[in-house]
Amino acid sequence: MAIQRYGMAVRLKDEKRQYYIDNHANVWPEVLEELKKINVQNYSIFLKEDFMFGYLEYTGNDFDGDMGKMQQIPIVDKWTKLMIDCFNPFPNNDDNESWVMMDQIFFME
Amino acid sequence: MAIQRYGMAVRLKDEKRQYYIDNHANVWPEVLEELKKINVQNYSIFLKEDFMFGYLEYTGNDFDGDMGKMQQIPIVDKWTKLMIDCFNPFPNNDDNESWVMMDQIFFME
Repeated sequence: MAIQRYGMAVRLKDEKRQYYIDNHANVWPEVLEELKKINVQNYSIFLKEDFMFGYLEYTGNDFDGDMGKMQQIPIVDKWTKLMIDCFNPFPNNDDNESWVMMDQIFFME
Repeated sequence: MAIQRYGMAVRLKDEKRQYYIDNHANVWPEVLEELKKINVQNYSIFLKEDFMFGYLEYTGNDFDGDMGKMQQIPIVDKWTKLMIDCFNPFPNNDDNESWVMMDQIFFME
Protein backbone atom coordinates (compact mmCIF):
# COMPACT_ATOMS: atom_id res chain seq x y z
CA MET A 1 0.00 0.00 0.00
CA ALA A 2 1.01 3.58 -0.51
CA ILE A 3 2.32 5.47 2.51
CA GLN A 4 -0.24 7.69 4.23
CA ARG A 5 1.14 10.37 6.53
CA TYR A 6 -0.67 11.36 9.72
CA GLY A 7 -0.02 14.38 11.93
CA MET A 8 -1.66 14.70 15.33
CA ALA A 9 -1.46 17.13 18.23
CA VAL A 10 -2.21 17.34 21.95
CA ARG A 11 -0.97 19.14 25.06
CA LEU A 12 0.89 17.71 28.02
CA LYS A 13 -0.02 18.31 31.68
CA ASP A 14 2.88 19.95 33.51
CA GLU A 15 2.75 17.46 36.36
CA LYS A 16 2.90 14.53 33.93
CA ARG A 17 5.55 15.93 31.61
CA GLN A 18 8.53 13.98 32.90
CA TYR A 19 6.48 10.81 33.29
CA TYR A 20 5.42 11.00 29.64
CA ILE A 21 8.96 11.72 28.43
CA ASP A 22 10.45 8.89 30.49
CA ASN A 23 7.85 6.39 29.30
CA HIS A 24 8.42 7.36 25.68
CA ALA A 25 12.14 6.84 26.02
CA ASN A 26 11.23 3.27 26.88
CA VAL A 27 7.83 2.34 25.45
CA TRP A 28 6.47 -1.07 26.43
CA PRO A 29 7.66 -3.53 23.76
CA GLU A 30 4.17 -5.01 23.37
CA VAL A 31 2.84 -1.62 22.32
CA LEU A 32 5.55 -1.18 19.68
CA GLU A 33 4.93 -4.73 18.40
CA GLU A 34 1.24 -4.03 17.95
CA LEU A 35 1.92 -0.75 16.15
CA LYS A 36 4.16 -2.59 13.70
CA LYS A 37 1.55 -5.31 13.20
CA ILE A 38 -1.01 -2.74 12.07
CA ASN A 39 1.47 -1.22 9.57
CA VAL A 40 2.59 1.88 11.45
CA GLN A 41 6.16 2.99 10.70
CA ASN A 42 8.48 5.99 11.04
CA TYR A 43 6.62 7.28 14.10
CA SER A 44 8.03 10.33 15.92
CA ILE A 45 6.70 12.48 18.75
CA PHE A 46 7.97 16.04 19.22
CA LEU A 47 7.52 18.38 22.20
CA LYS A 48 7.76 22.18 22.55
CA GLU A 49 6.40 24.04 25.57
CA ASP A 50 3.36 21.91 26.49
CA PHE A 51 2.48 21.09 22.88
CA MET A 52 3.12 17.71 21.35
CA PHE A 53 3.09 16.74 17.72
CA GLY A 54 3.00 13.15 16.51
CA TYR A 55 3.96 12.09 13.00
CA LEU A 56 3.52 8.57 11.69
CA GLU A 57 3.29 6.71 8.44
CA TYR A 58 0.67 4.04 7.81
CA THR A 59 0.78 1.50 5.00
CA GLY A 60 -2.43 -0.44 5.67
CA ASN A 61 -5.87 0.19 4.20
CA ASP A 62 -8.09 0.80 7.26
CA PHE A 63 -6.42 3.20 9.70
CA ASP A 64 -9.37 3.67 12.07
CA GLY A 65 -10.18 -0.05 12.02
CA ASP A 66 -6.58 -1.02 12.72
CA MET A 67 -6.29 1.50 15.55
CA GLY A 68 -9.53 0.19 17.04
CA LYS A 69 -8.31 -3.41 16.86
CA MET A 70 -5.07 -2.45 18.54
CA GLN A 71 -6.93 -0.91 21.48
CA GLN A 72 -8.69 -4.22 22.12
CA ILE A 73 -5.39 -5.70 23.27
CA PRO A 74 -5.41 -5.29 27.07
CA ILE A 75 -1.80 -4.18 27.50
CA VAL A 76 -2.15 -1.61 24.72
CA ASP A 77 -5.38 -0.32 26.24
CA LYS A 78 -3.65 -0.04 29.63
CA TRP A 79 -0.76 1.93 28.08
CA THR A 80 -3.12 4.22 26.21
CA LYS A 81 -5.14 5.05 29.33
CA LEU A 82 -1.98 5.90 31.26
CA MET A 83 -0.87 8.22 28.45
CA ILE A 84 -4.27 9.89 27.98
CA ASP A 85 -4.10 10.73 31.67
CA CYS A 86 -1.04 12.90 30.81
CA PHE A 87 -2.91 15.03 28.26
CA ASN A 88 -4.61 18.38 28.28
CA PRO A 89 -6.97 19.02 25.36
CA PHE A 90 -5.74 20.83 22.28
CA PRO A 91 -7.05 24.43 22.03
CA ASN A 92 -10.71 24.54 20.89
CA ASN A 93 -10.94 20.75 21.28
CA ASP A 94 -12.01 20.40 24.90
CA ASP A 95 -14.27 17.45 24.10
CA ASN A 96 -11.34 15.42 22.79
CA GLU A 97 -9.31 13.84 25.58
CA SER A 98 -6.52 12.55 23.35
CA TRP A 99 -4.65 13.37 20.13
CA VAL A 100 -6.51 15.40 17.52
CA MET A 101 -5.80 14.63 13.89
CA MET A 102 -4.40 17.47 11.78
CA ASP A 103 -4.82 18.26 8.09
CA GLN A 104 -1.83 17.74 5.83
CA ILE A 105 -1.47 20.91 3.75
CA PHE A 106 1.95 20.28 2.21
CA PHE A 107 4.06 17.34 1.13
CA MET A 108 7.38 17.10 -0.65
CA GLU A 109 8.80 13.65 -1.34
CA MET B 1 24.28 10.06 6.07
CA ALA B 2 21.76 8.80 8.59
CA ILE B 3 18.28 10.33 8.52
CA GLN B 4 17.72 13.09 11.07
CA ARG B 5 14.10 13.94 11.83
CA TYR B 6 13.05 17.52 12.58
CA GLY B 7 9.75 18.73 14.03
CA MET B 8 8.85 22.41 14.11
CA ALA B 9 5.84 24.48 15.08
CA VAL B 10 4.28 27.88 14.49
CA ARG B 11 0.86 29.55 14.35
CA LEU B 12 -0.97 30.94 11.36
CA LYS B 13 -2.60 34.39 11.19
CA ASP B 14 -6.33 34.04 10.49
CA GLU B 15 -6.23 36.58 7.69
CA LYS B 16 -3.36 34.73 5.98
CA ARG B 17 -4.69 31.19 6.47
CA GLN B 18 -6.07 30.63 2.99
CA TYR B 19 -3.10 32.35 1.35
CA TYR B 20 -0.70 30.02 3.15
CA ILE B 21 -2.74 26.92 2.31
CA ASP B 22 -3.06 27.89 -1.35
CA ASN B 23 0.63 28.62 -1.68
CA HIS B 24 1.56 25.30 -0.08
CA ALA B 25 -0.64 23.42 -2.50
CA ASN B 26 1.59 24.88 -5.18
CA VAL B 27 5.00 25.79 -3.78
CA TRP B 28 7.38 27.62 -6.13
CA PRO B 29 9.42 24.91 -7.90
CA GLU B 30 12.68 26.77 -7.19
CA VAL B 31 12.06 26.47 -3.46
CA LEU B 32 11.44 22.72 -3.70
CA GLU B 33 14.56 22.28 -5.83
CA GLU B 34 16.71 24.06 -3.28
CA LEU B 35 15.26 21.99 -0.44
CA LYS B 36 16.18 18.81 -2.30
CA LYS B 37 19.68 20.13 -3.03
CA ILE B 38 20.36 20.56 0.69
CA ASN B 39 19.18 16.99 1.41
CA VAL B 40 15.69 17.63 2.77
CA GLN B 41 13.16 14.86 2.07
CA ASN B 42 9.76 13.56 3.21
CA TYR B 43 8.63 17.05 4.29
CA SER B 44 5.03 17.47 5.49
CA ILE B 45 3.16 20.40 7.03
CA PHE B 46 0.02 19.81 9.10
CA LEU B 47 -2.60 22.31 10.30
CA LYS B 48 -5.16 22.21 13.12
CA GLU B 49 -6.93 25.32 14.41
CA ASP B 50 -4.23 27.98 13.96
CA PHE B 51 -1.36 25.64 14.84
CA MET B 52 1.00 24.24 12.26
CA PHE B 53 3.51 21.46 12.59
CA GLY B 54 6.24 20.71 10.10
CA TYR B 55 8.04 17.39 9.84
CA LEU B 56 11.05 16.82 7.63
CA GLU B 57 13.94 14.47 7.22
CA TYR B 58 17.48 15.68 6.59
CA THR B 59 20.32 13.52 5.33
CA GLY B 60 23.14 16.07 5.18
CA ASN B 61 25.68 16.86 7.89
CA ASP B 62 25.16 20.58 8.58
CA PHE B 63 21.48 21.41 8.95
CA ASP B 64 21.86 25.02 10.10
CA GLY B 65 24.58 25.71 7.52
CA ASP B 66 22.52 24.22 4.70
CA MET B 67 19.42 26.17 5.74
CA GLY B 68 21.48 29.36 5.86
CA LYS B 69 22.91 28.74 2.41
CA MET B 70 19.45 28.14 1.01
CA GLN B 71 18.23 31.50 2.31
CA GLN B 72 20.95 33.27 0.34
CA ILE B 73 19.17 32.36 -2.87
CA PRO B 74 17.01 35.41 -3.69
CA ILE B 75 13.86 33.55 -4.76
CA VAL B 76 13.98 31.34 -1.65
CA ASP B 77 14.48 34.37 0.56
CA LYS B 78 11.51 36.06 -1.12
CA TRP B 79 9.32 33.00 -0.54
CA THR B 80 10.41 32.72 3.08
CA LYS B 81 9.61 36.36 3.82
CA LEU B 82 6.13 36.01 2.31
CA MET B 83 5.48 32.94 4.47
CA ILE B 84 6.90 34.44 7.67
CA ASP B 85 4.43 37.28 7.16
CA CYS B 86 1.66 34.64 7.61
CA PHE B 87 2.86 33.55 11.04
CA ASN B 88 1.96 34.34 14.61
CA PRO B 89 4.55 33.32 17.21
CA PHE B 90 4.27 29.99 18.96
CA PRO B 91 3.11 30.31 22.61
CA ASN B 92 5.93 31.52 24.92
CA ASN B 93 8.10 32.24 21.85
CA ASP B 94 7.15 35.81 21.04
CA ASP B 95 10.71 36.69 20.06
CA ASN B 96 10.73 34.04 17.32
CA GLU B 97 8.98 35.21 14.17
CA SER B 98 9.10 31.87 12.36
CA TRP B 99 9.07 28.12 13.06
CA VAL B 100 10.39 26.99 16.45
CA MET B 101 12.24 23.70 16.57
CA MET B 102 10.77 20.98 18.78
CA ASP B 103 12.43 18.18 20.75
CA GLN B 104 11.99 14.64 19.49
CA ILE B 105 10.97 12.53 22.51
CA PHE B 106 9.97 9.30 20.74
CA PHE B 107 10.91 7.40 17.63
CA MET B 108 9.86 4.03 16.28
CA GLU B 109 11.36 2.87 12.97
